[in-house]
Amino acid sequence: MTTDAKILSALRANPGGVSGAELAGQLRISRAAVWSHIEDLRRLGYDIEAGPHVGYRLAGEPDALIADDLLARLNGTRVIGRDIRVFEQTASTNDVVEKLARDGAGEGAVVFAESQTRGRGRLGRQWLSPARKGLWFSVLLRPELHPQETTRLTVASATALCRAIQSQTALAPEIKWPNDILISGRKVAGILTELSAELDRVRHVILGVGVDVNWSAGELPAGLRKTATSLRIEAGEPVSRPALATAILRELDADYSRVCAGKFGEVANEWEARCTTIGRRVTIRIGARQLSGRAESLDEGGALLLRTEHGHLERVTGGDVTLEK
Amino acid sequence: MTTDAKILSALRANPGGVSGAELAGQLRISRAAVWSHIEDLRRLGYDIEAGPHVGYRLAGEPDALIADDLLARLNGTRVIGRDIRVFEQTASTNDVVEKLARDGAGEGAVVFAESQTRGRGRLGRQWLSPARKGLWFSVLLRPELHPQETTRLTVASATALCRAIQSQTALAPEIKWPNDILISGRKVAGILTELSAELDRVRHVILGVGVDVNWSAGELPAGLRKTATSLRIEAGEPVSRPALATAILRELDADYSRVCAGKFGEVANEWEARCTTIGRRVTIRIGARQLSGRAESLDEGGALLLRTEHGHLERVTGGDVTLEK
Repeated sequence: MTTDAKILSALRANPGGVSGAELAGQLRISRAAVWSHIEDLRRLGYDIEAGPHVGYRLAGEPDALIADDLLARLNGTRVIGRDIRVFEQTASTNDVVEKLARDGAGEGAVVFAESQTRGRGRLGRQWLSPARKGLWFSVLLRPELHPQETTRLTVASATALCRAIQSQTALAPEIKWPNDILISGRKVAGILTELSAELDRVRHVILGVGVDVNWSAGELPAGLRKTATSLRIEAGEPVSRPALATAILRELDADYSRVCAGKFGEVANEWEARCTTIGRRVTIRIGARQLSGRAESLDEGGALLLRTEHGHLERVTGGDVTLEK
Repeated sequence: MTTDAKILSALRANPGGVSGAELAGQLRISRAAVWSHIEDLRRLGYDIEAGPHVGYRLAGEPDALIADDLLARLNGTRVIGRDIRVFEQTASTNDVVEKLARDGAGEGAVVFAESQTRGRGRLGRQWLSPARKGLWFSVLLRPELHPQETTRLTVASATALCRAIQSQTALAPEIKWPNDILISGRKVAGILTELSAELDRVRHVILGVGVDVNWSAGELPAGLRKTATSLRIEAGEPVSRPALATAILRELDADYSRVCAGKFGEVANEWEARCTTIGRRVTIRIGARQLSGRAESLDEGGALLLRTEHGHLERVTGGDVTLEK
C-alpha cells in the first residue's frame, strides 16, 4: 500500500480525527511529509479538515476511482485486487488486461476505467460506458480449470455481483443466465468472460464487469429504458462507486476462492436461488440454432441444463435467452 | 502475388527456360525490370541461368523459406496462406500470429520462422526449433465454431499434415491422439492449438505446427532420439522444406474447408484410419487425474471417447496418452 492509501485507511479508522503526530508515528515519516500527503489527497478531491483539537478528519470523498483509495478500502484480499490500476479513459478494460496478461501480469490484477470508448458486451456488442455513470473494469485470472469449466467463473462473478450490490443498496438483484444481473426485471450489470487457452489448459481468463451505477432516468439512452436500469434509479439515490467497487472485488475474491477450492457446488446453489431463468420455460438462440425447453439447473461445469420438448437434456454454455411468459 | 513471385511461377512453368521478352510481356514490365528482379532472386539464393537461346532458366533453389516463393508455389488457396510472412528468427510464431490477430489480421495469415528461440509445445513445454532443421509456423483462423468444437481443427490439421508428408516423402505417417504425428512410432511433428474465445464464441484460433524435417540422426539431441525422429532420417534423404511447407498449407486449406462446410465426419474417418490410438488400451493423464480404458472413436466435437474399465464412456479433450502394450 502506498503512503496515500495508508493515510486514507487511518482517516477512515478514526472518523473523529487523528493527529499529525500519530499519523507520522504510524507511518514512520515526518509530520511535514504527512502534511504533504494530505495536500495530495485534497488535490484528488478528498475533503480533509484540519484543526488543533481533532487533527486531520475525513469530511468528504470524491466520486472518483483512485487506485490508492480502492487498495486502502480493500485492505487485503486473497487474489483479486492485489494490483489495481485506474485509467481515466481506455478503449476497453478487457483489452488492457489482455495486454497485461501477455506481459506476464499476475492473477488478480484489476483495471478500472472511468470511461471506455469501445466497451463491449457479449458477442461483440457495444457496452455504453460514459464517465462516472458506472463501474467498468476487468480482472485477470489464471485458474487451474479445464477450458470447459470456465463458465464456473461467470457463475461465481454473478453471485459475487449480487451480494455486493445488495450490501451497498439493499436492492435485491436477480440473475438472468448466462451473464446478466437484473433488478425488477431490468438489466443493471453484465459480465463478459474472455478465455485464452490451449485445448486442455486455460492460460488466462479475463472477467469484464460493467455495472450501471449512477445514470439518472433521464440520462439512460431512450433505446435502453425498457430493458436497462441503474442502481441509482432503483435505489432512489446515488451510490458510492468506490464503496461498491471495493465490495464487488471482495465478493469476487471470496467466490473465486470457493471455485478454486472445489466448492463450486456451493456457488451454484446460491446462483440457482437468485436466478430467474431456472425453472422457467425459455427459448435460447445460439447463432442460427434455437432451443426451447425448461431451464432445469446448472451442471458442474457451470453450463445450463435445458430439458427440451422431447425430454432430452441439453447442455448449453451460451446464447440469448428469452423467458416465455 | 509480388513480381518476384510471378517470375518464380513463370520459371517453374517453363523448366526449359523463358525469354526476358516473354517475361516482360506477361508481367507488363520492361526487360530491364525483369533483369533487376532476376538479380534480386539470385541474391536470395536462386540459381537462375541466362543464355541467348533459353532465356532465363531455374537451375537450383535455396533451402530457405521465402514468402514470395511460398506464395508462387501455393498459387491460390481458399483461405490458408493468403498472407504469408517469413521471419529469420522469432521467439514463437504463435505469439507473432496472436499479435496479428489482435491487430485485426484476416484469417489464413501464416507466419513461418527459420528458427524460434522460445518455440513451445503443448502445456508450455519447450519445442526445439533450430534454423533450417524443420518447419515452424503458425496459422490464424477465425472459424464459426463453438469453443468446444475447436478440437476439430487439431484433428483436421493432423490429417492434413499426414497427407502432405506422405505426398512429399512416400513415408506413412500415423497419428497419436491428440496432436502428434509419428513415423515408425517416433514423433516427427506436432500441433499446438491455441484459442481465444468468449464462453460461447471463438474469436480466433492459432494453429502452431512444428515438423522435424532435416535433422540428421547425429544432430537430434540425445534425450530425444528414443522418442523423436525427422523426415530426413526416415526417408534417408533431405526433404525440400519449401515444397513440404506448400503441400502442408494446401492440405490444411482443404481440410479447414471440409470442417467449415460441416464435413467434419469425413475428416474424422480419415483421422481414425491413421490413428494408432483408436482401438488401443490407453492411459491418459490429465493434470493430476488419470484415466484408463479403450480409445473407441472421436465424437463430433473432435474429442476422444474413452471406454473406461467400468464401461462408462468418457469424453476427453486433452492429456498425455500412453499406449498400453
